[in-house]
Amino acid sequence: MSTPLFNRVALVGLGLIGSSIAHAARAKGAAKEIVGTARSDKTRARVKELGFLDQVMESSAEAVSGADLVIICVPVCASGAVAREIGTHLSPGAIVTDVGSVKGSVVSEVEPHIPERCYFVAGHPVAGTEHSGPDSGFAELFEGRWCILTPAAKASPEATEKLRAFWSMLGSNVDVMDPEHHDLVLAITSHIPHLIAYNIVGTVADLETDTRSEVIKYSASGFRDFTRIAASDPAMWRDVFLSNKDAVLEMLGRFSEDLSGLQRAIRRGDGDALEQLFTRTRNIRRNIIEAGQETEKADFGRIETIPSKKD
Amino acid sequence: MSTPLFNRVALVGLGLIGSSIAHAARAKGAAKEIVGTARSDKTRARVKELGFLDQVMESSAEAVSGADLVIICVPVCASGAVAREIGTHLSPGAIVTDVGSVKGSVVSEVEPHIPERCYFVAGHPVAGTEHSGPDSGFAELFEGRWCILTPAAKASPEATEKLRAFWSMLGSNVDVMDPEHHDLVLAITSHIPHLIAYNIVGTVADLETDTRSEVIKYSASGFRDFTRIAASDPAMWRDVFLSNKDAVLEMLGRFSEDLSGLQRAIRRGDGDALEQLFTRTRNIRRNIIEAGQETEKADFGRIETIPSKKD
Repeated sequence: MSTPLFNRVALVGLGLIGSSIAHAARAKGAAKEIVGTARSDKTRARVKELGFLDQVMESSAEAVSGADLVIICVPVCASGAVAREIGTHLSPGAIVTDVGSVKGSVVSEVEPHIPERCYFVAGHPVAGTEHSGPDSGFAELFEGRWCILTPAAKASPEATEKLRAFWSMLGSNVDVMDPEHHDLVLAITSHIPHLIAYNIVGTVADLETDTRSEVIKYSASGFRDFTRIAASDPAMWRDVFLSNKDAVLEMLGRFSEDLSGLQRAIRRGDGDALEQLFTRTRNIRRNIIEAGQETEKADFGRIETIPSKKD
Repeated sequence: MSTPLFNRVALVGLGLIGSSIAHAARAKGAAKEIVGTARSDKTRARVKELGFLDQVMESSAEAVSGADLVIICVPVCASGAVAREIGTHLSPGAIVTDVGSVKGSVVSEVEPHIPERCYFVAGHPVAGTEHSGPDSGFAELFEGRWCILTPAAKASPEATEKLRAFWSMLGSNVDVMDPEHHDLVLAITSHIPHLIAYNIVGTVADLETDTRSEVIKYSASGFRDFTRIAASDPAMWRDVFLSNKDAVLEMLGRFSEDLSGLQRAIRRGDGDALEQLFTRTRNIRRNIIEAGQETEKADFGRIETIPSKKD
């Protein structure tokens, strides 16, 4: 066990990410004490049962007092309200961070509420599963995954370094960039893929009943991968699209233009244009494998892990 | 080992599917002898080295003579030409099938070349990986996966039943439907998801170099799943879109309409509309899990199987 980096870590929000931070920080000995709170009575009661926190508090004001690290783990659009609630209750010298998938809007909404004597460094652990809620957290979620910190211009370099050390201890590779750049890169790597997956699953949901049940039956041929992505937390993703509107609309525009081109090639029977694109996309895959972000091992539907219906 | 269903199975085309059929038929003892051919000298030479066939023939005419089951395993648009080549060389009573992802066009292009005394039953094993070529085949590819047979109206029921027995022996669940219905269902479960995946990977390929390398770095946040789908065999997929044009354009039209609706909701900041869709799509996922086509186990990037860069 390493020396704890913080005396008391306070988690505001105890869903997949909040609960995983608690499990990971405990497993790695990153904090002497880990406390937290959640807005709903049900979640707080469940977390007490699960027992992964030292204390479950009734309010965020109470949770953050005495903490030297405060992590806001709520959907992006709720971050500003949380910051307003906790601002006057923060202990001097406390570092405040968050885990939202959009950074520009979080920085502008949270920062005004953080008092002079505290340090706000926005963050985004690029990790998750399609599950949500306090039962879905686990200690290994951040291992080998990126965590991007986007300190505002006036942020203290020491606070950024201490937060970097915390995420490294939890197993992440830490990168620092500016909030706007983060939002553009994530729009294309994460937000647009999720939007497209939600969209195609929605298209299927609108099919007539007979066809829909056959689509479900034969889903392993490609569609299934989209449904996994489209099963992610609705409130979280609603907020992502509302708060990263400009970058998402920009990238969506490019995607739609390209799709119209493909549609035209199919309509005209232009096989060369299709094959050319399909060949070019293989290189991107190769680059991802070379970057260590994926394995070359074939994924043939994870058939080996599919349990029986009642499992 | 069960009693072989066929004396000699001839495979025309030895890529991922052809070579997997050879491995599976041998493992299950479905045929006394398995022979085959491929158009390129390189592939035939490689298959001889790999040694998974009893004989590698120089031509398809030679490969099919004396076979009681002939399986055409080439990209969809090449099926007609293969049928023309082999038609006069088929043995009386031979069953001819294929493995193409589109069935309407295959039936209309292959059937005219099959002599009266032989039986054509089109087929589609709904299985695959993102790899291609004779080295990528393996015996378990079809296990627990669907195989759809689409016999033409005049096909012999006995031939269909014998082919069903063959695919069952290879581990597949066999379904029978008409070719047009197959093409509509697969357009949405498989063809559109592949088209969209190719498209978004293409959009990324067009980004400026700096942004592109960061997209690759942070690909695990959603984009990576699309690159896997978009790494599938280019020639095979070109043919799918050329030969299932009508169903693909119909489904693509619906997808694009829905996407415009989402785009409008984002532009207007309509959070309710977004959350409503994102919630509705979770049900489809649940249905797929209940249908036994997927596991509930969270997929967090298959991090546990990622080998080191040089692995």
